[in-house]
Amino acid sequence: MVATDIATRVWSHTFKLDPIVRSLLDTDFYKLLMLQMIWGLHRDVDVSFSLINRTKRVRIADDISESELRAQLDYARSLRFTKREMIWLAGNSFYGSTQIFRPAFLEWLSHFQLPDYELSRVDGQFELVFHGKWTHTTMWEIPALAIINELRSRAALKGLGRFELDVLYARGKAKMWEKVERLRKLPNLKISDFGTRRRHSFLWQRWCVEALKEGLGSAFIGSSNVLLAMDTDVEAIGTNAHELPMVTAALTTSDAALKRAPYEVLKEWQSYYGGNLLVVLPDAFGTETFLRDAPDWLTEWTGFRPDSAPPIEGGETIMAWWTAHGIDPREKLLVFSDGMDVEGIEAAYRHFDGRVRMSFGWGTNLTNDFRDVAPGGGSALEAISLVCKVIAANGRPAVKLSDNPAKATGDPAEIERYRRVFAGSTIFPRDVRV
Amino acid sequence: MVATDIATRVWSHTFKLDPIVRSLLDTDFYKLLMLQMIWGLHRDVDVSFSLINRTKRVRIADDISESELRAQLDYARSLRFTKREMIWLAGNSFYGSTQIFRPAFLEWLSHFQLPDYELSRVDGQFELVFHGKWTHTTMWEIPALAIINELRSRAALKGLGRFELDVLYARGKAKMWEKVERLRKLPNLKISDFGTRRRHSFLWQRWCVEALKEGLGSAFIGSSNVLLAMDTDVEAIGTNAHELPMVTAALTTSDAALKRAPYEVLKEWQSYYGGNLLVVLPDAFGTETFLRDAPDWLTEWTGFRPDSAPPIEGGETIMAWWTAHGIDPREKLLVFSDGMDVEGIEAAYRHFDGRVRMSFGWGTNLTNDFRDVAPGGGSALEAISLVCKVIAANGRPAVKLSDNPAKATGDPAEIERYRRVFAGSTIFPRDVRV
Repeated sequence: MVATDIATRVWSHTFKLDPIVRSLLDTDFYKLLMLQMIWGLHRDVDVSFSLINRTKRVRIADDISESELRAQLDYARSLRFTKREMIWLAGNSFYGSTQIFRPAFLEWLSHFQLPDYELSRVDGQFELVFHGKWTHTTMWEIPALAIINELRSRAALKGLGRFELDVLYARGKAKMWEKVERLRKLPNLKISDFGTRRRHSFLWQRWCVEALKEGLGSAFIGSSNVLLAMDTDVEAIGTNAHELPMVTAALTTSDAALKRAPYEVLKEWQSYYGGNLLVVLPDAFGTETFLRDAPDWLTEWTGFRPDSAPPIEGGETIMAWWTAHGIDPREKLLVFSDGMDVEGIEAAYRHFDGRVRMSFGWGTNLTNDFRDVAPGGGSALEAISLVCKVIAANGRPAVKLSDNPAKATGDPAEIERYRRVFAGSTIFPRDVRV
Repeated sequence: MVATDIATRVWSHTFKLDPIVRSLLDTDFYKLLMLQMIWGLHRDVDVSFSLINRTKRVRIADDISESELRAQLDYARSLRFTKREMIWLAGNSFYGSTQIFRPAFLEWLSHFQLPDYELSRVDGQFELVFHGKWTHTTMWEIPALAIINELRSRAALKGLGRFELDVLYARGKAKMWEKVERLRKLPNLKISDFGTRRRHSFLWQRWCVEALKEGLGSAFIGSSNVLLAMDTDVEAIGTNAHELPMVTAALTTSDAALKRAPYEVLKEWQSYYGGNLLVVLPDAFGTETFLRDAPDWLTEWTGFRPDSAPPIEGGETIMAWWTAHGIDPREKLLVFSDGMDVEGIEAAYRHFDGRVRMSFGWGTNLTNDFRDVAPGGGSALEAISLVCKVIAANGRPAVKLSDNPAKATGDPAEIERYRRVFAGSTIFPRDVRV
């Protein structure tokens, strides 16, 4: 019996668009946590986000057609949170807490729609900018990145034969599973999927999440992707991102206020969330300066997420700060999430095992590692370093310094001013691969 | 749109049997060629075939349930050649010749049914024997082997999770494609699928054939599997097998007639087939003796298939015989088909390139190479050396010596007699892996 499903076949040959983002929950969990706070405390702030391709040699706009990109972005704008998604957000427990989202916020969210975008092409790159209320523009970051990255994958796969595609994904799966088998050897590992924004494709990320769930068991603690967390019944993982200190800093009007901004925003966070959601992202303007000037109440937070220093140096810096404050790091948590892959995870695990609690957020190298997998080689399937960053808040320029100068963003004069205000941090120049 | 095909789902949950052999064409092409000659010249001869597991350490009957095996064998007995299969056999050209099958034979074949079988279990092995007319028992060889091998695969795969299965086949595909990429580097290679009897499963063999077709292009000259040749539009490949000299020899009543038997049967073959189908299988009772006593008219045949000597020694022996008869081996063909894998193919190719035409029949290591592919290791998916051999003809014992004593079959006293009659061949003792 070879039964052809005629309806599916007709659907296929009358195909118009294969939407990449099909749900507003297909985003990172921290976006919803941050959004609740932004909506609660900063709903009148205007914030602009812009796409930045740090891998300049890849001319995205030569590979992806502008009309395809517009069709995908327009489709994402047509989405609303569905009833069952709203019920799940209201009824699910996150990090062990129920009703983390307040009823008034959920009521507002049920009407949410992605705002308009501005798109043009300049020198082989897309200029994609989102202007408007922070409560709306913030929500473009993840879908915009996922859409462009998946359109890039689709372009790279055009022209491959049926068996070449079959073997490509077979190799991808075999490669992924080798990583799973290595990670299995680390007792009490805690690892989560952080790969939404840079994923090869939605379906591939879903395969990876389901494979980790089966392959790693309790070592796999969840996914940053809210839709996948819901659909595959794993924990939604995430806390906060650089946009919070960046916007808060941009809105200050004196150097003294600027210096206080990274702590002000954490005080706000604390008024919204507790427990395991109290994770500091210390590197927006340099980790060492942040720690040097940090208020004592930050020692009570659960942990830190070093995101641009090398994991071992960055972790040691934070542990030294805890120790200097009389805190035993074994009660604290480090979350490693910057360009991690199996080698880096193993190295950090071995270095810190027994000295501090740790978990890993595994991103691009989980959901978009097709290096040496494409038949005939070529770099078209290699992940690129594409980000979507705050560029301005209420018309004032936004800046990120980070512990790695290659990750700094913002107006050069403002970067200079920030470097002066936040002077004192070691910088760790490293290539940004992903 | 996630559309569940309800009919397929209901079919699945009311599933009774997943038949392994679903067509009488799911057999090796040489079976049909031999059958036409057997039907033409020996239709009254009784021949018994028996299953022999040369890999004794594997207790097949402990892994496979007898009732499952009976259900599969009974299903195969329910098959008839279908109308479109008969039309294809009549209308297709094989090795460049049309109407290779005579109308009277095809008329007889259209009523063909596999005969009854005798099955019992002895010490962890199945005793599976086919008694009856040669015209019928011969046709059990390939389906019986394919059924038992696939039931073994199915038993080994029971209990694997969905992702373990997914990764297993992903690794299998990646492994196969690595072989394809190596073979691609050999210019003017000629290789065919000989893997029906030992295949992991029918669907896996089909995947391999389709992958070779796409991956090797014109280097892939076809499949021994008639059904796959028809369905994937490649050439059906094969000539003759040991059962011809074995039965002819068993029916002789004197040592002198026994000595002539290997040539008598080739004379018969010559009366039925020509051109590329004139390939000698010289090793039934030892290649060197065969060549020493061979009649001159055999120098006119297209080539030889050394099937139990090591490829290089076996090939050199045959080339020396051609040269001694004033024949340029570059006009002749060697077909290598004994336990070949990429390494052996590359070695034979390099050794003989430019000195003789050659082609490779790639069997078990093509369609059943799951070594080191199963999650967690284990040997349950490793191919075993299972054969189905003639044991008697008209009540007289049948014998095969081969160039490798580990491949000898038959009654020990008769083997001794054959060794005396065919004395003079070098033997090449080698482990029989597959």
